[in-house]
Amino acid sequence: MTAAYTKLVILLKDIATLKSISGGLSWDEQTYMPPQGSAHRSEQLAYLAGLAHEKSTSAELATVLAEARSEVEKLADEADETGHWLVNVKEAQRAFDRSTKLPAALVQEMARATSLGQQAWITARKEKDFAHFLPSLEKIISLKREEAQAVGSPTGHLYDALLDEYEPGATAGEIAAAFAPLRDELVSLCAQIAQSPVRPRVELLEHHYPKTAQRVFAEAAARLIGFDFERGRIDESAHPFCSGFGPGDCRLTTRYLDHYFPSAFFGVLHEAGHGIYEQGLPEKAFGLASGEAASLGAHESQSRLWENLVGRSKAFWQFFYGSAQQAFPPVLGSVTLDDFYAAVNNVRFSFIRVEADEVTYNLHVMLRFELEQDLLLGHLQPRDLPGAWNERFQKYFGMTPPDDSQGCLQDVHWSAGLLGYFPTYTLGNMYSAQIFEAASGELGDLQAQFAAGQFRPLKEWLNEKIHRQGRRLPATKLMEQVTGHPLSHHSLMSYLRQKYTPLYQLQ
Amino acid sequence: MTAAYTKLVILLKDIATLKSISGGLSWDEQTYMPPQGSAHRSEQLAYLAGLAHEKSTSAELATVLAEARSEVEKLADEADETGHWLVNVKEAQRAFDRSTKLPAALVQEMARATSLGQQAWITARKEKDFAHFLPSLEKIISLKREEAQAVGSPTGHLYDALLDEYEPGATAGEIAAAFAPLRDELVSLCAQIAQSPVRPRVELLEHHYPKTAQRVFAEAAARLIGFDFERGRIDESAHPFCSGFGPGDCRLTTRYLDHYFPSAFFGVLHEAGHGIYEQGLPEKAFGLASGEAASLGAHESQSRLWENLVGRSKAFWQFFYGSAQQAFPPVLGSVTLDDFYAAVNNVRFSFIRVEADEVTYNLHVMLRFELEQDLLLGHLQPRDLPGAWNERFQKYFGMTPPDDSQGCLQDVHWSAGLLGYFPTYTLGNMYSAQIFEAASGELGDLQAQFAAGQFRPLKEWLNEKIHRQGRRLPATKLMEQVTGHPLSHHSLMSYLRQKYTPLYQLQ
Repeated sequence: MTAAYTKLVILLKDIATLKSISGGLSWDEQTYMPPQGSAHRSEQLAYLAGLAHEKSTSAELATVLAEARSEVEKLADEADETGHWLVNVKEAQRAFDRSTKLPAALVQEMARATSLGQQAWITARKEKDFAHFLPSLEKIISLKREEAQAVGSPTGHLYDALLDEYEPGATAGEIAAAFAPLRDELVSLCAQIAQSPVRPRVELLEHHYPKTAQRVFAEAAARLIGFDFERGRIDESAHPFCSGFGPGDCRLTTRYLDHYFPSAFFGVLHEAGHGIYEQGLPEKAFGLASGEAASLGAHESQSRLWENLVGRSKAFWQFFYGSAQQAFPPVLGSVTLDDFYAAVNNVRFSFIRVEADEVTYNLHVMLRFELEQDLLLGHLQPRDLPGAWNERFQKYFGMTPPDDSQGCLQDVHWSAGLLGYFPTYTLGNMYSAQIFEAASGELGDLQAQFAAGQFRPLKEWLNEKIHRQGRRLPATKLMEQVTGHPLSHHSLMSYLRQKYTPLYQLQ
Repeated sequence: MTAAYTKLVILLKDIATLKSISGGLSWDEQTYMPPQGSAHRSEQLAYLAGLAHEKSTSAELATVLAEARSEVEKLADEADETGHWLVNVKEAQRAFDRSTKLPAALVQEMARATSLGQQAWITARKEKDFAHFLPSLEKIISLKREEAQAVGSPTGHLYDALLDEYEPGATAGEIAAAFAPLRDELVSLCAQIAQSPVRPRVELLEHHYPKTAQRVFAEAAARLIGFDFERGRIDESAHPFCSGFGPGDCRLTTRYLDHYFPSAFFGVLHEAGHGIYEQGLPEKAFGLASGEAASLGAHESQSRLWENLVGRSKAFWQFFYGSAQQAFPPVLGSVTLDDFYAAVNNVRFSFIRVEADEVTYNLHVMLRFELEQDLLLGHLQPRDLPGAWNERFQKYFGMTPPDDSQGCLQDVHWSAGLLGYFPTYTLGNMYSAQIFEAASGELGDLQAQFAAGQFRPLKEWLNEKIHRQGRRLPATKLMEQVTGHPLSHHSLMSYLRQKYTPLYQLQ
């Protein structure tokens, strides 16, 4: 390594170490922290965030970045190992530019507005009172607009400037173009399913599933698909997530509902998918782009792949259903595999995104993607959001939310300032199908492997093709390299049709 | 507040915040961290320690300390609130001086030597092989001598320089003077007990006590004596401790042995005693001397008071024994209160300090106190430690350890560089009896209160007299103020004789 690059690596690892400490404290906050610990915890997190920001925008970092870039460019043959160096320098520069473009006053105002915004949102959702949240939403949208203007984007579009934080290099235009045919086909598939005479016995998932048995069963499944408990663990929290204390220490959480089996089980598979990605990143590149996940969409492609394409497949349950019956004998002892499989794949229109099945889910996302662009660009005024939401919901889902808590107030994202985040969920779903198709092409009959309890070939293929690559390529390029195709709705629709045609006896 | 004092408070809170974060990460390391998380955790802790050291020895802190001192001294009327300011400034200056007197090279060498030392000690203890630990011990003793010389002490004695870190203001001379008569009286009491015909039925503590029932029972006891679970929690670790993430978040740990009841139960009462002290400190003074515990001896006085003077009292079990019988019906259903009470107060000579009863325990400590002074002053060469240990053990206990793992290799302290720490255990025991005597004088019949399940009056008295005082006074002065007497063996011996005379039918 060159002298400046070596120094840059040290500075970047320091920043990443601070962030990994914050990650650990946040995990504890949501799992084990006693109630009265929250005030001091906030101070700890604010102090660490301040230190990280200071180090992320320091004059020293600016100098070292410039020196490293000039040194590394002299060496540059992007195909060999020094190619990663150049990516790491460029990506560090990108992060530095983004941090320094934001005025400190804006950052502080945003922190305050989103902190108050989340409090207002909690009350508003509980009280079904959009008016209570409106002033916060107006403030946040206005600040996000300022942020997008300050950061800028190569396309000149405000929304792209925000999207870039979650899905580097992606643009709203490309995403909209890929979403449009997907929406049409999903609406058509939903209509077919709605007319089907098949009614899965969903009530069998709502019997008593004892919590301890659920935990043991879900952990066994996570272990079998490849989540490494020597380098991670699963605990409980109100809202499931995958986070951690850094390399070698990935923490998943879930929530066990003793009268609803799918929540924790598929939640664990989903978070384990994120965790397997994190555990597959090159640990030695901690703090560098080559040691980080490619994007949120790429991350979600892994969680959805294990949750849905694997975990909700017939083959998976051909292998696992015997264990499920042993784990929950009173409720599953006399239920057939086919009935169970149909129940965990029930499709129905519902108001709440996080409860949606894999067919209707993406319609929820698209609705948000469209509305948040309109909000940001000023085509939709925050005060008009409930009406716009309900109108569009009626159009896609053929029904209208009974209140705003089941409508535009259901998600935390906007109150937390997360504009540009939603589309990554559907990108993840689209990528997951493309990846699975490519893996099937290379690994042979995956269904036969799952039915025999063999998940390792798929996991190792993902390790090699995606996880170990870090962020050496932008996510869109990485996915194209892995799947052989640019982003498209074809794989996802083909997967869904192939699965749901027999399940719902469609034509 | 004055401008400089206000600035000083901010700087000190920043340092304390960093340390509280390290405390949290260390707690997690010993409770929930997956095995492969240790490498990165070490880096996190080293990084935080570096930041804290940097801020503890900064030129900015030196300047602000000097300004604050001059400002506060002008205001000084030590009786009113500004008096605390002066203490806080002086104590911060003392910590600053201590940190800056240590050359960075010595600090680094000590960190390396104690890290290697603990590894060597683990192996040596396991293999019963003192020679394996000897080189580390020699290095550590030599470095501790350098440290003591660098830090210095008002008395000019090397040992006092180290002691000052744990028991500010105490001297080896005063402690030795208080220990000498205690040792004589303990040896005499032990001899009397050894001749007693009474043999408590200790085997009843070694039946099967299911772990879950132990946990529920121990937590109920901790709650009842006043540990606040809104501001703390109890988890499991290999070695019990009381630590935390800072104000409002105190973490206790214990270890449940399913065939030995006293370990976890009295361990929890002990740690809860530490925890009640921590929870009783003035939270607003976080980072300042007035918000910290007075000394390790003062801390230990609280843990031993709740563990022994309360938890091993007849009155405590008059209230609790019914619940114990309900929690463990197969083993305690037919055991009488008197038999149980005698069993948890069994006195016998043993080789291991941490397993010792409250009569023999202090002899273990004194032996270490004497030997570590000899080691530091060069009166005893590290290579001669096993012989010296065994000789002195024979003198106090009338028996010789069968190997060094049950002798001079049993404790982690010296391998971790903790010289000067041991005497605080016996100081804690002595203070606990003095405090209990004073509390009894002011609160009336404590035994009657315990027998009725009333622990709150004692807890609140301790809160007021000790916890809320922080470190406004040196521990010796605080204890004298609270108990009305200087440190002495009288209260402890009087308590022990009063308790064990009927138990062992002594004359």
